[in-house]
Amino acid sequence: MIDPLAHVRDLFDLDDDVVYLDGNSLGAPPKAVAARVQEVISHQWGRRLIRSWSEGWWETPERVGDRVGRLVGAAPGQVVVADSTSVNLFKALMAAARNATGTEIVVDEGTFPTDGYIARSVAELTGLALRPAPPEHLDLSDTTAVVLLNHVDYKTGRLLDMAALTRQVHDAGATVVWDLCHSAGVLPIELDRLGVDLAVGCTYKFLNGGPGAPAFLYVPTAAQPAFHQPLTGWTGHEAPFAMRGEYAPDPGVSRARVGTPDIISMLALDAALDVWDEVDLKDVRAKGLALTAHFRGLVEGLPGVEVITPADEWRGHQVSLRHERAADLMAALIARNVIGDHRPPDVLRFGFAPLYNTFGDAERAAATLKELL
Amino acid sequence: MIDPLAHVRDLFDLDDDVVYLDGNSLGAPPKAVAARVQEVISHQWGRRLIRSWSEGWWETPERVGDRVGRLVGAAPGQVVVADSTSVNLFKALMAAARNATGTEIVVDEGTFPTDGYIARSVAELTGLALRPAPPEHLDLSDTTAVVLLNHVDYKTGRLLDMAALTRQVHDAGATVVWDLCHSAGVLPIELDRLGVDLAVGCTYKFLNGGPGAPAFLYVPTAAQPAFHQPLTGWTGHEAPFAMRGEYAPDPGVSRARVGTPDIISMLALDAALDVWDEVDLKDVRAKGLALTAHFRGLVEGLPGVEVITPADEWRGHQVSLRHERAADLMAALIARNVIGDHRPPDVLRFGFAPLYNTFGDAERAAATLKELL
Repeated sequence: MIDPLAHVRDLFDLDDDVVYLDGNSLGAPPKAVAARVQEVISHQWGRRLIRSWSEGWWETPERVGDRVGRLVGAAPGQVVVADSTSVNLFKALMAAARNATGTEIVVDEGTFPTDGYIARSVAELTGLALRPAPPEHLDLSDTTAVVLLNHVDYKTGRLLDMAALTRQVHDAGATVVWDLCHSAGVLPIELDRLGVDLAVGCTYKFLNGGPGAPAFLYVPTAAQPAFHQPLTGWTGHEAPFAMRGEYAPDPGVSRARVGTPDIISMLALDAALDVWDEVDLKDVRAKGLALTAHFRGLVEGLPGVEVITPADEWRGHQVSLRHERAADLMAALIARNVIGDHRPPDVLRFGFAPLYNTFGDAERAAATLKELL
Repeated sequence: MIDPLAHVRDLFDLDDDVVYLDGNSLGAPPKAVAARVQEVISHQWGRRLIRSWSEGWWETPERVGDRVGRLVGAAPGQVVVADSTSVNLFKALMAAARNATGTEIVVDEGTFPTDGYIARSVAELTGLALRPAPPEHLDLSDTTAVVLLNHVDYKTGRLLDMAALTRQVHDAGATVVWDLCHSAGVLPIELDRLGVDLAVGCTYKFLNGGPGAPAFLYVPTAAQPAFHQPLTGWTGHEAPFAMRGEYAPDPGVSRARVGTPDIISMLALDAALDVWDEVDLKDVRAKGLALTAHFRGLVEGLPGVEVITPADEWRGHQVSLRHERAADLMAALIARNVIGDHRPPDVLRFGFAPLYNTFGDAERAAATLKELL
C-alpha cells in the first residue's frame, strides 16, 4: 500500500524487530527528545541556572500549549500544558459546575475511570448529581449543568460525533467538556470552530510526549474571564512575582496554571511535538483508518475473536478485540515482540500510530495472533 | 575553615567561576541526573516501551517518596512524590478541612503566596473562614480546624519551631499542615517523631530535583484511612487497572496520587537524591549555619543594608538583606556571576546550599556586594 508517512518512522527511536501497537497508551520516543533533554539539563539548568526561568522556561506552559492547540483546532492563547489529565479535569469540571444553573453532571457511561471518579468528586463538592448515560441517549434537559464526554472510548475505540454532541449539549443550555486523550493526534479536531466549551487531554499517547508527560487544558478566549478553577496556585496569578497576599487570576488562559511547571518533562514534550511540523493531520487520519481497516480485515473471523471497535469511520486508531483468554494472549504476543495491551477482563487493544506504524506491523501482529490461536 | 562536605561539590555540574546562591529557589544539577535521564529515555522508554510501567515506573511515586521521607523523618510508606506543591497543598488542606470540627483555617501571615491562595480556595469550598496570623501569636481556639505553617519563611529565612507549634496546634484540637519547601534538605526534620499531621514540600530547591520537579506529600500511616482528598484520579484507586466504575481509594499513602506520574522528571529527581546518600543532614545543617553566619558577618554594616534573617539558629540556609535598590543590585551581582535573587520590593536573597557552596562563595559574594555599594 502507498504510505505518505513512511519516512516519518525514521524520526522515532524504535527497534525494527518490535511491532509496537500500544501508542494509544504510551507513544514511542521521537529521536529529538533525548538530545533536547540533555540540552535542557546540561545547558539551560546547569549553565544558566535560575536565569533560565526568565529565558523562556516561565512561558513554557502557554508556548507548548499553543503547539498542542494547533493540533486540536485551537487558536493561540487558549491552551496550557500543565499537570495531569485528572487534575485538569478537576479544574475544568469545577469551573463549569460553579458557573452552571443546572443540577446534574452527565458523563458518558463508558468513560475512562478517572473522568468518572473526578466527576463524582466535583459533584460532591458542588452539590450536583452525577448521572452516567450512553452517548446515544444522553437525555439532557434544563437540569443538566455539565456534560463530560470521551471523544474516543479508551476500551472500544469508538469515536463520538463532537459536532453533533456539542450542539446537543448547547441546545440543553449546558456546558460540554471533551476528553481528547485518545483523539489528540488521531484526527483533525476543531475545538474553536465547533464552539467547544472546555477540553482536556493527555500528551503521552498519540502525541508521544513521554511517560506521564504533562497534560493540556483548553479554555477558549471568551470563556476565560468566567473560568474560576479552585487550584489557585501562584503561577496562575495575574502578577505571580509580585507575591501579593490576595489571589487575582491572570486575565487569560494562564489562570489555568497552578504550581511551578515541570520543565524537564514539558520540554521533552516540546521536542516530541516537532514531528507534527512534518505531517498533515489529514494524512495521519487517512493512514490510521487504513491501518486499522487492514488489521481488522486480517483478524476478523479468527476463532473466538470478536472485534468490538466500530467498523465504520466512527473509530479512533485502535482495534479492540474480545477474547476469553485475552490476558494470556497478550502476554504471548508481547513475548513475541508484538506489543499491544490488555484491559480486563477480556479486551485486547492494538493501537496504530500512523507516524511510526506500518502495514507490515498490522500483518505481523495479525499473523502472530493467528498462530497463537 | 574546615568543610566536611567540600568533596560533595564535585558531584554537581556547576561552573567554577559562578557563585551560585539561589539554591533556595532552584538547586544546581547533580552530575548523575543527565546520564540517568538519558537511560530513562533511550532504554526504559525507547527499548522497553510500555513494559516499563510494570518494570518499576508505576511504583516511582512511593519509592522516591520513601527516599524523600528519609530526609524529613518519615518512615517508609508515608510520602508520595507527585504533582506540584500547590496541588499537594490543596489535597492536604481539603482532606484536613473535611475531617475538622472547627470553623477556621489559620495560615502564617508571611506565607509564600501559593499557600495563602490555596488555603483561601479550600476555605471557600468547605465554608470555613481563613485567618492569617503571626506564628508567635496564632491565637488558636476550639474553633480552629487547620493550621498551615511554612517551616522556613521564603522571604526572611526565619525557621519556625516545629515541635512547639505542632504541640500548640494539637493542644487546640486542630490539624497542622507543614510546608517544608524551604527546609527539606536544610536541617534534620522529624515528622514522625513530632506527630505532624500532614506536610508538603518541593524538591527543586535544596533537594536539587530540577526545575519544577514533582513535589511531595506526607500522610502518616495512622492518618491514611481518614485522608480523603478530592483529586480522586485513577492512580490513587485501590485497583487502578481493574478500571472499575466507582472510586475506592488505595488503603495506604497511594491514595494521595492522582494522575499518571511524570516519569522523566520523577526519575531525574531520583538520580538527584543519590547525593544525599553521601552526607549526614547534621553536617549539612552545621555547614549551612556556618556559611550563612560567615556571609552575614561580612555584609552586616554595609551602607543601606539591613539583614532581615534572624541572627540566632532559628533560620534556614539563606541570608536576606533589605536595600532600597535591591532590584538593581541583584541585576549587577548577577552580571558579575554572583547569582542570588530579588523579591519585591526591596529584598535580596542569598541561599547557601551546603552541598555545593563554599566559604569562598560567601566571601566573593560579600566582596562583590561591597564593591557595588
